[in-house]
Amino acid sequence: MTAVTLGEIAQRFGLKLVGDAGVSIDGVCSLLPGRAGGIAFLNDAKLRDRLGDSAASAVIVREQDAQGLSGAGLVAADPYLAYARIARLFDPDRPFSPGRHDSAQIAADARIGEGCWIGPQAVIESGVALGSRVFVGPGVVVGRDARIGDDSRLSANVFIGPRVRLGARCQVQPGAVVGGRGFGNARGPDGWEEVPQLGGVHIGDDVEIGANTCIDRGTIEDTVIEDGVRLDNLIQIGHNCRIGAHTAIAACTGIAGSTRIGRRCMIGGAAGIAGHIEIADDVILLGRAMVTGSITRKGVYGSGLPLDEVREWRKTVARVRRLGRLDERIKALERGRDGSSAADTEAKGEDV
Amino acid sequence: MTAVTLGEIAQRFGLKLVGDAGVSIDGVCSLLPGRAGGIAFLNDAKLRDRLGDSAASAVIVREQDAQGLSGAGLVAADPYLAYARIARLFDPDRPFSPGRHDSAQIAADARIGEGCWIGPQAVIESGVALGSRVFVGPGVVVGRDARIGDDSRLSANVFIGPRVRLGARCQVQPGAVVGGRGFGNARGPDGWEEVPQLGGVHIGDDVEIGANTCIDRGTIEDTVIEDGVRLDNLIQIGHNCRIGAHTAIAACTGIAGSTRIGRRCMIGGAAGIAGHIEIADDVILLGRAMVTGSITRKGVYGSGLPLDEVREWRKTVARVRRLGRLDERIKALERGRDGSSAADTEAKGEDV
Amino acid sequence: MTAVTLGEIAQRFGLKLVGDAGVSIDGVCSLLPGRAGGIAFLNDAKLRDRLGDSAASAVIVREQDAQGLSGAGLVAADPYLAYARIARLFDPDRPFSPGRHDSAQIAADARIGEGCWIGPQAVIESGVALGSRVFVGPGVVVGRDARIGDDSRLSANVFIGPRVRLGARCQVQPGAVVGGRGFGNARGPDGWEEVPQLGGVHIGDDVEIGANTCIDRGTIEDTVIEDGVRLDNLIQIGHNCRIGAHTAIAACTGIAGSTRIGRRCMIGGAAGIAGHIEIADDVILLGRAMVTGSITRKGVYGSGLPLDEVREWRKTVARVRRLGRLDERIKALERGRDGSSAADTEAKGEDV
Repeated sequence: MTAVTLGEIAQRFGLKLVGDAGVSIDGVCSLLPGRAGGIAFLNDAKLRDRLGDSAASAVIVREQDAQGLSGAGLVAADPYLAYARIARLFDPDRPFSPGRHDSAQIAADARIGEGCWIGPQAVIESGVALGSRVFVGPGVVVGRDARIGDDSRLSANVFIGPRVRLGARCQVQPGAVVGGRGFGNARGPDGWEEVPQLGGVHIGDDVEIGANTCIDRGTIEDTVIEDGVRLDNLIQIGHNCRIGAHTAIAACTGIAGSTRIGRRCMIGGAAGIAGHIEIADDVILLGRAMVTGSITRKGVYGSGLPLDEVREWRKTVARVRRLGRLDERIKALERGRDGSSAADTEAKGEDV
Repeated sequence: MTAVTLGEIAQRFGLKLVGDAGVSIDGVCSLLPGRAGGIAFLNDAKLRDRLGDSAASAVIVREQDAQGLSGAGLVAADPYLAYARIARLFDPDRPFSPGRHDSAQIAADARIGEGCWIGPQAVIESGVALGSRVFVGPGVVVGRDARIGDDSRLSANVFIGPRVRLGARCQVQPGAVVGGRGFGNARGPDGWEEVPQLGGVHIGDDVEIGANTCIDRGTIEDTVIEDGVRLDNLIQIGHNCRIGAHTAIAACTGIAGSTRIGRRCMIGGAAGIAGHIEIADDVILLGRAMVTGSITRKGVYGSGLPLDEVREWRKTVARVRRLGRLDERIKALERGRDGSSAADTEAKGEDV
Repeated sequence: MTAVTLGEIAQRFGLKLVGDAGVSIDGVCSLLPGRAGGIAFLNDAKLRDRLGDSAASAVIVREQDAQGLSGAGLVAADPYLAYARIARLFDPDRPFSPGRHDSAQIAADARIGEGCWIGPQAVIESGVALGSRVFVGPGVVVGRDARIGDDSRLSANVFIGPRVRLGARCQVQPGAVVGGRGFGNARGPDGWEEVPQLGGVHIGDDVEIGANTCIDRGTIEDTVIEDGVRLDNLIQIGHNCRIGAHTAIAACTGIAGSTRIGRRCMIGGAAGIAGHIEIADDVILLGRAMVTGSITRKGVYGSGLPLDEVREWRKTVARVRRLGRLDERIKALERGRDGSSAADTEAKGEDV
């Protein structure tokens, strides 16, 4: 979309218009400095006083901030959400024309829904079923008998393993591996022996899977990612895990096998979650959380010893390691106190 | 394989049959609920009492659990290992037909052994030598002069760098990068200058390399992964490392350059191991272990401060940071005790 | 290059020659054992006494070590840097012939500079502009309207997103994803809604990006990586970050969105850096550093509780968790001391 009037945006998204409906909007911009033609949003109360400094042609604000608008604007209950929806109008990477690139390799028995695009160097293996309007980007591999729901988008160089099921409106970022072999090995007489991973991966609707993120296929049953889950980049999800609906997980997090994560959880970056545990609904884990056991109650959890200047940090580590001795010294003092009381008593006794 | 009788399985794997040899098995299943046609295994003693609840057509059990079988079964010294081997019969992704896809790009001088498959969009560069029955999946790149041993499997979108040597029966999962440039940089007058990484990577036999895992090529000599090593997903192995035979490493672990890991180690997920150190044979590292120096004795090691409810965690961090003051307060008390003893003595002295 | 005389190397790099100028050098080698035909370097003072044990045909040394040379050598102010530059002569993977592989898919309107190579199965989308002598390896995808500077090298299976700008002399290792979608999501009435990431990624000159490393595109403005930055493998850089010039970051580090890192920082492996913070110039973070807030002064910083034998570690964790009680016990002792002084006084009072 090249340009649209503010009035049209207001109408399309059901937002209250402030100022000139004819203002032309050709894209989004930051609140500050902003730019002519751009629409920005005000979410951060600290920036409220600077609303007048923005060069944006329009700003999306909350009702209580509308009087601060010096130019045109839109009023929304949630300016960030309204911005998100409006910004989609201006996303140049979203629209595509249906068809297939000459270099795409599509198995003869694959079923391709209407309105799909199969990009250059892509591979669609035998038995695959794509819904309607699926975007298969360059270099993507969709393995045998996999199923991809309507309007899903496989960006580029993605691997979807055999028999993986992906729901509707999913987005898979470049390099993601959905349905690689789970890490199952049995000790044999001559070393590790592979345990075949015969389950699949079942991804719900409206799931995002980040760049180079890996979701392993299950050992016997499926690994399951429920509807609306958001996974950032470089995440590892082990075999047989289940991630509850609408849970969001930030980058670099690793979740070992057979763990169940609840619904609507928010998991910070680089969290490490042990296998075979359960995490309740609505749990929030701060970044770098180290989770070694189940979490049964919703709440906010963190772990780790944060940063310090290196000399101080080393002293702290040394002190932590001397905690056992510290305890003994306190015990000695406690005994000493009792001892000295006793001695005092004796002394007093002697006095008596 | 579509179906096989339990008697045939027993014979093929040298296992004792319990019950009807003619039971037809068409795949594996979980013990619970299990399903008709499936073979399950009992490994977890806690489930022993529920053996009769399984709908599986057969269960693999230990000798001592065989009397608990309500239906047919197999007796194995190690049911999980027996299961692993039996499950391979039913792995639909294992067999392939030899040949090459029309879209594969194979250098004229590459030597391709008998029974290999070169998949769609794959690239085999000049001077490559593949052994027999090598599977090269879709989008795989095998760099110049690389050598791949018999029966190895490069799943999809894998990168094998120039001059990398991979042994027999290796498995490389999607997106793995074996033989990328090591992270070698020298400070020059105008910033970092690249130090060419002229070594290769030498992978032994029976090695598994997980999805999106990276193994850097050596600076001068090779980075070495010995026989039977198992690497999970998203692992980083720096240049010049050596990983000892039969060591298994879980996902998201990073090993900095020039470190040597012993044989038969088990390294938990998201461990971080410093460069230029040595880890002895048979070391077990728990998940998230932070290893800053060599480990000279076999044993089990862990590190880190595990999870807590956030308020408690913040208090703990603050307390750890006050450990220096705690120490001083204890010293004051110790001096006080000595002081007060002295005072007591004085007082007593006065009393005398 | 097959072989060159030591004299030619000395002349080419402006280094002082020791010994026979006619010594033939055909590659690099380690100092020990070294090999005939190889050139090694001595950087580690501890190996100075072993200089005579090297079988290398020449060794690059500092002035003060030159008298230890038993054979030929070169004298350099910085032997490692001199080695790095000399080693490039012998890097077989550096040179390439210009052209394009038949299987490469290049949009009709892409502008390809002189001397470029576009490898097999590569994809160059519409509007792309490549400078001169750019190497595009097998399976690389360069998205719409991206710009790549002169002499840059995209190794293999790399993804460069739409509108990404990459400077001159950059190196991108296999599987790297530059310009995937940033992790921006807004809460809607029915779950997360995507916030389009309409910014790009702007990479300066002389930047290295490691294997499977991910750099997300900005939300509105660009994510920026300044000149001379070195990124190792499996790094995550969130949307809207800015990484200052000549900063080096080791593998497995994650940097959350909108964080600014200064110039010339050195960040150890597997560091975790929170979003929306600033790190000053010349900051050094040790491996596994957990950074939850801004760092305003240059210096060396670390965090975490390093490894211990598991029983000791568990005791330490338990002790850390009892720190609150320890504090109370010390308080009791402190009160006790004051109390007992008071009591003593009283007692003395009684005595009086």
